[in-house]
Amino acid sequence: MNYCSHCGADQLITTIPPGDHHSRIVCQHCHTIHYQNPKIVTGCLPIWQDQVLLCKRAIEPRYGLWTLPAGFMENAESLEQAAQRETLEEAHAQVADLALYTVTSLPHIHQVYILFLAQLQNLNFRPGTESLEVTLFTQSQIPWDQLAFKVIKNTLQHYYQDRLTGHFPVHVEELQRPSPAQ
Amino acid sequence: MNYCSHCGADQLITTIPPGDHHSRIVCQHCHTIHYQNPKIVTGCLPIWQDQVLLCKRAIEPRYGLWTLPAGFMENAESLEQAAQRETLEEAHAQVADLALYTVTSLPHIHQVYILFLAQLQNLNFRPGTESLEVTLFTQSQIPWDQLAFKVIKNTLQHYYQDRLTGHFPVHVEELQRPSPAQ
Repeated sequence: MNYCSHCGADQLITTIPPGDHHSRIVCQHCHTIHYQNPKIVTGCLPIWQDQVLLCKRAIEPRYGLWTLPAGFMENAESLEQAAQRETLEEAHAQVADLALYTVTSLPHIHQVYILFLAQLQNLNFRPGTESLEVTLFTQSQIPWDQLAFKVIKNTLQHYYQDRLTGHFPVHVEELQRPSPAQ
Repeated sequence: MNYCSHCGADQLITTIPPGDHHSRIVCQHCHTIHYQNPKIVTGCLPIWQDQVLLCKRAIEPRYGLWTLPAGFMENAESLEQAAQRETLEEAHAQVADLALYTVTSLPHIHQVYILFLAQLQNLNFRPGTESLEVTLFTQSQIPWDQLAFKVIKNTLQHYYQDRLTGHFPVHVEELQRPSPAQ
């Protein structure tokens, strides 16, 4: 942010406004406070019998690695609508019976991942523009060392652990910035 | 948004960028796309024995009505940290043992409310700057007709319903814009 989006001035400073507790970008010309807040990434773990659907990323970051269909929630939609839309856009996959499953804070990148278990409705899936491939995997076929993000790996690990009991509680977690050695 | 925050030009238009599915604010001068996404409001339902803690709002909207301590999640914090911080800021109340409880999409105002059950740790609470009063209520004392928001009413209703069974599952819901008659 180089210019105030309200008045166009280039007099932006970072300061704690009176009565506030956090540093904000404030325009010294028109005094507008430009708040910045975390974004929600939402999507699905689509299930078909004993298989789950993964997408091979056609975009950076993590081009060529596998992920669950997920993306930024948009204004004017619900979480479930956003998760279904992302699943349709990235995998042309139709899902139903969404059940909230993992809620993961990633404070270092200002994101909260909210992922749902979902039942794949048919096999008419194919890659969307952001995917190179879309494939069903059994547990033994999951490419564990080629998953794009830790939050995806954690969600899949929870799923296979919970499948042993048939009980799928909501998992609430926090992921810190990976250390350089990881 | 009147000016591009990247280049300062006043040539903003609303259009669907190539390859996108949604209308965005785009700068015709520098071609920056200004994405806008839902915000997370998070907070707690603080519990003390058979009582819950509510705050009387000292700010608009809904000045003078009762709510749970909650507010906008900030960058660089986890959901639980944000919920605890809001509870401290609005009620000077210290809580622990947070358990995710209600997740409510409000698509008409581009918000997702994420509220936690939490155990109040002591009785050293008092109003923060955004509260007129902070008070513990038993079920029969809850000011049902003076609650600030429907999402707060729903969360309290779930709590008292679930207390009958002692089982507090996560509730995932969507609230639409109230009709004029409501």
